[in-house]
Amino acid sequence: MSTPLNAVIAQSGGPTAVINQSLVGAIEVLREAPAVGRILGARHAVAGIVKDDYVELQNLGQPHLEQVADTPAAALGSSRDRPDAAYCARILDSFARHDVRYFFYIGGNDSSDTCRLVLEQAQASGYELEAFHIPKTIDNDLVLNDHTPGYASAANFVARAFVGDNLDNEALPGIKLNVLMGRHAGFLTAAAALGRERDEGGPHLLYLPEVAVDEDRFLTDVDRVFTRRGRCLVAISEGIAGADGTPMAVKLAQRMQLPVEQDAHGNVQLSGSGALADALARFLKRNLGRPARVRADTFGYLQRSYLGSATPTDRFEAREVGRHAARTALETDRTDGSITIERIRDDPYGVRYGCVDLEAVAGKTRHVPLEWIEEGCDVNEAFIRYARPLVGELPRVARL
Amino acid sequence: MSTPLNAVIAQSGGPTAVINQSLVGAIEVLREAPAVGRILGARHAVAGIVKDDYVELQNLGQPHLEQVADTPAAALGSSRDRPDAAYCARILDSFARHDVRYFFYIGGNDSSDTCRLVLEQAQASGYELEAFHIPKTIDNDLVLNDHTPGYASAANFVARAFVGDNLDNEALPGIKLNVLMGRHAGFLTAAAALGRERDEGGPHLLYLPEVAVDEDRFLTDVDRVFTRRGRCLVAISEGIAGADGTPMAVKLAQRMQLPVEQDAHGNVQLSGSGALADALARFLKRNLGRPARVRADTFGYLQRSYLGSATPTDRFEAREVGRHAARTALETDRTDGSITIERIRDDPYGVRYGCVDLEAVAGKTRHVPLEWIEEGCDVNEAFIRYARPLVGELPRVARL
Repeated sequence: MSTPLNAVIAQSGGPTAVINQSLVGAIEVLREAPAVGRILGARHAVAGIVKDDYVELQNLGQPHLEQVADTPAAALGSSRDRPDAAYCARILDSFARHDVRYFFYIGGNDSSDTCRLVLEQAQASGYELEAFHIPKTIDNDLVLNDHTPGYASAANFVARAFVGDNLDNEALPGIKLNVLMGRHAGFLTAAAALGRERDEGGPHLLYLPEVAVDEDRFLTDVDRVFTRRGRCLVAISEGIAGADGTPMAVKLAQRMQLPVEQDAHGNVQLSGSGALADALARFLKRNLGRPARVRADTFGYLQRSYLGSATPTDRFEAREVGRHAARTALETDRTDGSITIERIRDDPYGVRYGCVDLEAVAGKTRHVPLEWIEEGCDVNEAFIRYARPLVGELPRVARL
Repeated sequence: MSTPLNAVIAQSGGPTAVINQSLVGAIEVLREAPAVGRILGARHAVAGIVKDDYVELQNLGQPHLEQVADTPAAALGSSRDRPDAAYCARILDSFARHDVRYFFYIGGNDSSDTCRLVLEQAQASGYELEAFHIPKTIDNDLVLNDHTPGYASAANFVARAFVGDNLDNEALPGIKLNVLMGRHAGFLTAAAALGRERDEGGPHLLYLPEVAVDEDRFLTDVDRVFTRRGRCLVAISEGIAGADGTPMAVKLAQRMQLPVEQDAHGNVQLSGSGALADALARFLKRNLGRPARVRADTFGYLQRSYLGSATPTDRFEAREVGRHAARTALETDRTDGSITIERIRDDPYGVRYGCVDLEAVAGKTRHVPLEWIEEGCDVNEAFIRYARPLVGELPRVARL
């Protein structure tokens, strides 16, 4: 019998409420496999791999693992590094030093691309490696997946926040803008509608990056709702842009001579800043043509990290994709791929897990279907039917 | 036997997670009293009273009332109006038209002052009125109270958000600033420390309005923590100001030529804007003297409205202060006053409810005791011992 070979697991990109469930799911299956020796967790993703910064995971007790699984954010640490060919060569060097045969990378579409690149270089250099991408992203923007682990919990946070903020806005009427995460995909912003009641109607307007919007159309929409209802609650994706692709954050900054921050990759910094929300509020106050109480919040990192937002379905499925990745590696002929979630039924809700080629997912972005978006400023029942089973029922609220 | 006289209940100021508990508590006691005829809820506080905009509350069923009690925000609607003498005269006119003998006003220190003013004018004009203020404020800044209903639930939200954000900041290290509500009192900002673990230490810095801070001291503190730990999580009250009383939001805007928004009362607008957080982040990036990932969030209205943040103790006590106000009006010689919560024990936690004169509370602001604040940038165990029984234990988190 050959010597058992080792496995590396890492977590990449923005943390979520359930990414540690996937980590624990993979560990649970791998530790039972005679073919697997050590299970190495890489600290801070690829950045840890190239520094041989590993923690041994095969001997942790189940009670400890269960606590880790229920802890939000990435227990191994994460990284925003996007490896190039030279970086991947250093990853493979580390794998060779540690007799690594199995690589599991939990992350979004950038991470699936990294996984693909590492595999490609391993094959080119004749290094025997099995590489699997385990899906995770609150943005819900992986192609070939019905949804991704992490989304439902973030959507639950957004939906609950909007139920409360809608009641707050009823109590103290005015115009309230809430900016949500989502540079290219509007799934999280759409979740603002999940707790909406038929008659009370907040949020009244939703803007997703899938549909171009300019600031004058935005002004007209808000003015119309505010005139009719005396209040207006708006959900806005951080990534909304005009028809030419210029982010709204940039357009308004130019129009009103406001400063713009950039992130490490040279993109306009959207997360971790209230700039877009404040610019939109300022634009409305200047251009509505009448006094109005305008307030703006940016939900920020709370969407992915708030302690207590994890939904039962999300926790369960995140664990399962971790297990499915390990089982696919150990029990099938597949030596690489990206784990998927496919919905088989709405009622009763049911899914099955699959595995597709890495290049089918890597670096691609899934968008909210245009037929779920109404007149560029709302989502319809098709989205609600899609998202309701993921988030579950929200607590009932009552009025006098 | 004389004709039963009527009661008016209203809710004022910023909504909370449990203000409707107090409303329901008052209704429960009043509806059983033969001396009370109709129970009138004023829509949007004093603004509704002067328009005779009332809803009858005495015939609502208990299941409906329980649902209302568990709904966040103000079910009657709220108002930011601050009545003057002429406004109070219109309030008394409405009371006279509706045979109102009892007035219950649920709110913060501005509301207790309104209650006092209405009572004073009633007495001056010979109108027989019993007027009671029922405490409510997430700011926790009413004098003569151990704490106020609404604070614990908001503190619970803040504590959970910081536990998650601290884990997020560990996973993707950098400098993270979170700005919290509290123009004059730092109780809510202090709550950021409630979930802090001894060894991991986030939040590392807390700035409360009780202690003056200038931007250069802030820079030095952040630089020290960031150098030592490679990350830094900071909690900042929106109301922090320099030694001369100038709000930090204004100082930084002047120093970096950024725009400043004002609210309807001509104060710098602190809530519903990310301006202070963004200005602090910008200031750090410009002045740290080395590259650093700096992100800033403003928790905003979520602190008071997020669906699901209400704590059991807060719900219970909010109901009790409503009941106690009604009982005091009906069963004691007192004809006016402000309901208080007094702590009688820490372990097991216990409180009793009292009633003090309106002018003892009205318009006054309670602050975080200076002996609970450490070196101007932290809170100590005295605060934790104070706040822990109110918020309860937080879910455990685990690390690898």
